[in-house]
Amino acid sequence: MTSTKVNVDLVRERAKCTFDLKELIHFVDGGEEITSERKAFEETVLAIKELKDDIPEDYLSHKERYEIAVRKACILRELRLRHDQNKPLLPERPTYVYNILPATIKDISPFYLHETMFLATIWGLMNDEQKAEWLSKALDMKVIGTYAQTELGHGTFLRGLETTATYDPETEEFILNTPTLTAYKWWPGGLGHTVNHCIILAQLYTQGKCHGIQPFIVQIRDLETHIPLPGVHVGEIGPKMGFQTANNGFLGFKNFRIPRKNMLMKNSEVKKDGTYVSSKSDRLTYGTMVVVRVNIVNDAAMQLSAAAIIAVRYSAVRHQSQLKPNEPEPQILDYVTQQRKLFINIATGHAIRIVGRWLWKTMLGVIQKILEGNLDQLPELHALSCCLKAVCTQDCTAGIEQCRLACGGHGYMNSSNLPLLYSHTTAAMTYEGENTVLLLQTARYLLKTWTQILEGDTKLNPTVLYLLNFAKPTDYRWENTNQGIIKGFQAVAAGKIKTAYDTASKHVSAGKSQEEAWNLASIQLVEASEAHCRVIICEVFSNEIQCASNTLSPNLSKVLQQLVELYLVHWALEKKGDILLYSTISKDDIPALRDRYEELLALIRPNAVGLVDGFDFRDEVLNSTLGAYDGRVYERLMEEALKSPLNAEPVNSSFHKYIKPFMEKAKL
Amino acid sequence: MTSTKVNVDLVRERAKCTFDLKELIHFVDGGEEITSERKAFEETVLAIKELKDDIPEDYLSHKERYEIAVRKACILRELRLRHDQNKPLLPERPTYVYNILPATIKDISPFYLHETMFLATIWGLMNDEQKAEWLSKALDMKVIGTYAQTELGHGTFLRGLETTATYDPETEEFILNTPTLTAYKWWPGGLGHTVNHCIILAQLYTQGKCHGIQPFIVQIRDLETHIPLPGVHVGEIGPKMGFQTANNGFLGFKNFRIPRKNMLMKNSEVKKDGTYVSSKSDRLTYGTMVVVRVNIVNDAAMQLSAAAIIAVRYSAVRHQSQLKPNEPEPQILDYVTQQRKLFINIATGHAIRIVGRWLWKTMLGVIQKILEGNLDQLPELHALSCCLKAVCTQDCTAGIEQCRLACGGHGYMNSSNLPLLYSHTTAAMTYEGENTVLLLQTARYLLKTWTQILEGDTKLNPTVLYLLNFAKPTDYRWENTNQGIIKGFQAVAAGKIKTAYDTASKHVSAGKSQEEAWNLASIQLVEASEAHCRVIICEVFSNEIQCASNTLSPNLSKVLQQLVELYLVHWALEKKGDILLYSTISKDDIPALRDRYEELLALIRPNAVGLVDGFDFRDEVLNSTLGAYDGRVYERLMEEALKSPLNAEPVNSSFHKYIKPFMEKAKL
Ligand SMILES: Cc1cc2nc3c(=O)[nH]c(=O)nc-3n(C[C@H](O)[C@H](O)[C@H](O)COP(=O)(O)OP(=O)(O)OC[C@H]3O[C@@H](n4cnc5c(N)ncnc54)[C@H](O)[C@@H]3O)c2cc1C
Ligand SMILES: Cc1cc2nc3c(=O)[nH]c(=O)nc-3n(C[C@H](O)[C@H](O)[C@H](O)COP(=O)(O)OP(=O)(O)OC[C@H]3O[C@@H](n4cnc5c(N)ncnc54)[C@H](O)[C@@H]3O)c2cc1C
Repeated sequence: MTSTKVNVDLVRERAKCTFDLKELIHFVDGGEEITSERKAFEETVLAIKELKDDIPEDYLSHKERYEIAVRKACILRELRLRHDQNKPLLPERPTYVYNILPATIKDISPFYLHETMFLATIWGLMNDEQKAEWLSKALDMKVIGTYAQTELGHGTFLRGLETTATYDPETEEFILNTPTLTAYKWWPGGLGHTVNHCIILAQLYTQGKCHGIQPFIVQIRDLETHIPLPGVHVGEIGPKMGFQTANNGFLGFKNFRIPRKNMLMKNSEVKKDGTYVSSKSDRLTYGTMVVVRVNIVNDAAMQLSAAAIIAVRYSAVRHQSQLKPNEPEPQILDYVTQQRKLFINIATGHAIRIVGRWLWKTMLGVIQKILEGNLDQLPELHALSCCLKAVCTQDCTAGIEQCRLACGGHGYMNSSNLPLLYSHTTAAMTYEGENTVLLLQTARYLLKTWTQILEGDTKLNPTVLYLLNFAKPTDYRWENTNQGIIKGFQAVAAGKIKTAYDTASKHVSAGKSQEEAWNLASIQLVEASEAHCRVIICEVFSNEIQCASNTLSPNLSKVLQQLVELYLVHWALEKKGDILLYSTISKDDIPALRDRYEELLALIRPNAVGLVDGFDFRDEVLNSTLGAYDGRVYERLMEEALKSPLNAEPVNSSFHKYIKPFMEKAKL
Repeated sequence: MTSTKVNVDLVRERAKCTFDLKELIHFVDGGEEITSERKAFEETVLAIKELKDDIPEDYLSHKERYEIAVRKACILRELRLRHDQNKPLLPERPTYVYNILPATIKDISPFYLHETMFLATIWGLMNDEQKAEWLSKALDMKVIGTYAQTELGHGTFLRGLETTATYDPETEEFILNTPTLTAYKWWPGGLGHTVNHCIILAQLYTQGKCHGIQPFIVQIRDLETHIPLPGVHVGEIGPKMGFQTANNGFLGFKNFRIPRKNMLMKNSEVKKDGTYVSSKSDRLTYGTMVVVRVNIVNDAAMQLSAAAIIAVRYSAVRHQSQLKPNEPEPQILDYVTQQRKLFINIATGHAIRIVGRWLWKTMLGVIQKILEGNLDQLPELHALSCCLKAVCTQDCTAGIEQCRLACGGHGYMNSSNLPLLYSHTTAAMTYEGENTVLLLQTARYLLKTWTQILEGDTKLNPTVLYLLNFAKPTDYRWENTNQGIIKGFQAVAAGKIKTAYDTASKHVSAGKSQEEAWNLASIQLVEASEAHCRVIICEVFSNEIQCASNTLSPNLSKVLQQLVELYLVHWALEKKGDILLYSTISKDDIPALRDRYEELLALIRPNAVGLVDGFDFRDEVLNSTLGAYDGRVYERLMEEALKSPLNAEPVNSSFHKYIKPFMEKAKL
């Protein structure tokens, strides 16, 4: 059982691969240098014995798991402090550094919110003086914090938050209060028992007036004893679908006082006497939100890639059923239905990673313009990041679940790691903007653009420029090519935006208010937004691979082109109803798409294992009995099972306590 | 916080309801008598203090949870023994009796396999003599068993099982062996540490020949000490996405001997001298499989109904965002996008429950015929139960997840119960026949039927009779009515069966073997099977509600008709691509469908809460902070959180152990 030979099927699959694996790995990482850097980092982290588990955490109690997570988070944080110094901010870096977590803490770190939103908010919303006071303390973990926005009663609707911060000019302090049960902060990661500070969003009251939501930095626990300060009611919110070790917490205040200078004053200010000086523009705060959403897009791509590796390798190792009588059982990877489940997820893993990187670059460009005083592209960037976050998390969640189900019964085992990947990715459909709400935000931008077009304005932002081509009935002819399909998706998006626009207008004409009309058209608005987002993903994926082809070797570039085409044809078939409705495709074109789709599956088949090897996840990061590089699937399943504390005793005490007395009663 | 008043929004919603709630409840249960019986049973069970938890199980370790589950399972089993006596087998009963589990064990009972497959197999596959020996012992729990079919290496492909049972005429015993690692039994519920017997499926060898898979009953633990017998290697397989307390196990044998009479001999026999006498027909064993699949369909419907109750009640209580400036935040149930997420799941809950009951009645009819010696309808029943199990579990899984996501952040809390509902229902997509594999089985039947039709045979079974209308190009006109939509789905199913048939034929003509052609057409075959299944669900749901309308009051029957129409229009829009391709609908008909869909949402809106109240789940069964009858959502969320053992101490030990030293190091 302790052989370390690589499974013969995988050896055979790898021998078939038509491209240079190293080249793909460097392409995925973003360059050879980054690959080396990543590997060195992984090497360092994974050499630390203290980060390994004796007993898999799934067997432990909620409390034990939290305690282990804290221990590991401290080790990792220290390492990061040493590692991250003087490293430039590359679009590739956040993901690969974060990606070490599945190999160590497994679930979410109780410091996760500290490392992301807490630091980002200090960075983005404090004025220089405040930054000087807090930033290095936070970076060095002298204070540990979280970002507390959501309350029991309000997540989506920020203006509805109920926590109050009332300014008292006598003492130059704010008094924080939680006036109702629904005003309790609820959800912030690490808030339960880990952090000693948090950024609190609260309704600011001064000089008898409410000035809306403002951020405050608040110490909630004593730095020496960690005991909650008087006036603070804090604890954890209990078990969830995932995020078991994230220590999400609740928090209430009762006349809790903080100094005036604890309001984050980059955009707005409260003077000593209580005068409120309002912000010039709060649009700058979009910045942080976009960064966070780009990270979510990248994480989702990584998680889907992990699921694809697991499911493809397992499908190469697993043999089941007979294709032909008297022949050996085939690898399940040879069933065309199985290929359909898996290959699109390899393609989607690439597509979304590439889109995430493109979004990051786009954002850097927009930020540069902002620094030059030009805010014109901000609304477009916001609209883009909303729909991309929504659609990418949705696609990746669905893809991971498809990969899990494709592993049959064993995919349901935690040791496959697929259940955890699922529960993390699906959470991202809700946090940082609930997906429907985000799609509606993008829809608002699209409707504005459509109005612009109807008014004859042709100066549109780059990502919506294509809509101009569809403002009037066009006579373009459907073409069964990549570009033809993308054009078809553009026609669908334009058609859906127009339909939604017309529906809303119809309701207004019929006497409804703008807001009611918006609500009545909202199903169509969401669909329009999704269709627009599909255009973006298809275009970016296709263009970026096209560009990369100039420098990649012909063999690799051919395979990547196949993935692009698979992605396009897959979505054309998925959305054939829309394409039939809004583009010039005819019924007779559909069978050709279907044939092409099936051909592509066959073309990709020989490279399937090579392609997932190309995502280059170390076994520790993948953390899956089904997905390890050597394919020792059954050995690992058994090895993991034998770690169960229940298996340490031949007879569990419940037999003598409950079952035996019960059987004896039955005997009478 | 301990008020027991019902939330005002729910009071208002209930006042708006246009039908008699009691009437709906009786309709859902299958009659007033059954409602009373169910309620009495619930009353009895829920009065038992020992079935209540001090600390929610999610906080405990894997081992503790198992031990609690065993304790509760014994109490429940005793109760069932008393309760079930002399009760006739009604199609309604299995579900409502099973339905008490979410209120007691919460997760799956370690006796679950004993109560289902173990008993069913004894019943179905033992001869009379064997039944006399085993049945009452099993019913009285003098022996506790499970059903061990799946192995590490084989689930779907039974013929591939590797466990061997070799007959030794000298001692008149079978010798059981697990020749390889992949031959280990893997998955059987209760096998880990609970059962002392199991039904083992193994390759029978006698007189030097293999006679394929046969069932054996095997004692694996000592009845007094519960210690595994020599030659038995048994344990649990470890944590899963759900089924934490099901105690799924592994099992290997080393030269383990059992008496000859332990082979289940209803269909086949091994004589004393080792002569193998083969079965007349193993088609009779279809029976058990169909019963199990009907139960799965019913369970899935119940679980989706529970999710719909939770999400609809929560959406009535939850207020978020502003529709109009300066107006109070609306109930999220008023967002049309939210209605789209939820109302289809109310309709689907009814549709699938009704289909499950219809399938049960159909099965009883077929069994009656079989007893009269007529096996003609068996293949149809088998094909039906395969695709219905697959499509219903798929729809319910997707629906539950949609309900969960519709609850925003709080839907991710375990205390909403939505994560557990999801993990149970999705498991049913895999066990008792993996869904793709089942759809392909139905496809085989459909292709046979199509061949029959092409050969001019018009004597088809009832559920495929509709295909005759589409054998030749027809000139029926699309109608925007319920019957029109059903006809449209029939056209789609027929079109897809024809396409799949043609594709397979094309590949055969091109020189592929039948089996290769089957595989190459398999994506289309799966889709054909799904389309056929959608026809069945739509027809049965529509017809049964139509019939019921004769006896129901006009008000209730109107609302149920709306649900039927919503179901039909929803799927017509979902499948508009197929309808555009295969039916005579034109592009211009689609907007009418879309308008009708939006109208239906508005029509159902006032009755939404009434409709989910009509599923009549007691709070204990629903077990959800978000879904309780009184709508005290936020109070319950907080009450549950306060039960966390982490919240019992103001400072967790990990602060002093890890965080503080870390902060101090940072200070330097
Ligand atoms: C795992 C996890 C971690 C989290 N971590 C943090 C954290 O660290 N800090 C923090 O502050 N918060 C955190 N949150 C909270 C999170 O940000 C919110 O849950 C999220 O913003 C969604 O808001 P909600 O829960 O209020 O959903 P709701 O808005 O209540 O959504 C419920 C339903 O209402 C619908 N809806 C709401 N408004 C509209 C509208 N205007 N139009 C149409 N439909 C609408 C939604 O589409 C959805 O279907 C976390 C949440 C999760 C799940
Ligand atoms: C929660 C749970 C409880 C269970 N309880 C029990 C129990 O009590 N007793 C017991 O004996 N077993 C039990 N099982 C095992 C279960 O019956 C099997 O997992 C199930 O039959 C699926 O088989 P598999 O795991 O071999 O999947 P596989 O067949 O390996 O499926 C993997 C993939 O291969 C594909 N595939 C396989 N064959 C074909 C084909 N011919 N054509 C096309 N595609 C194919 C599938 O579609 C799937 O995508 C349980 C499983 C679960 C998840």
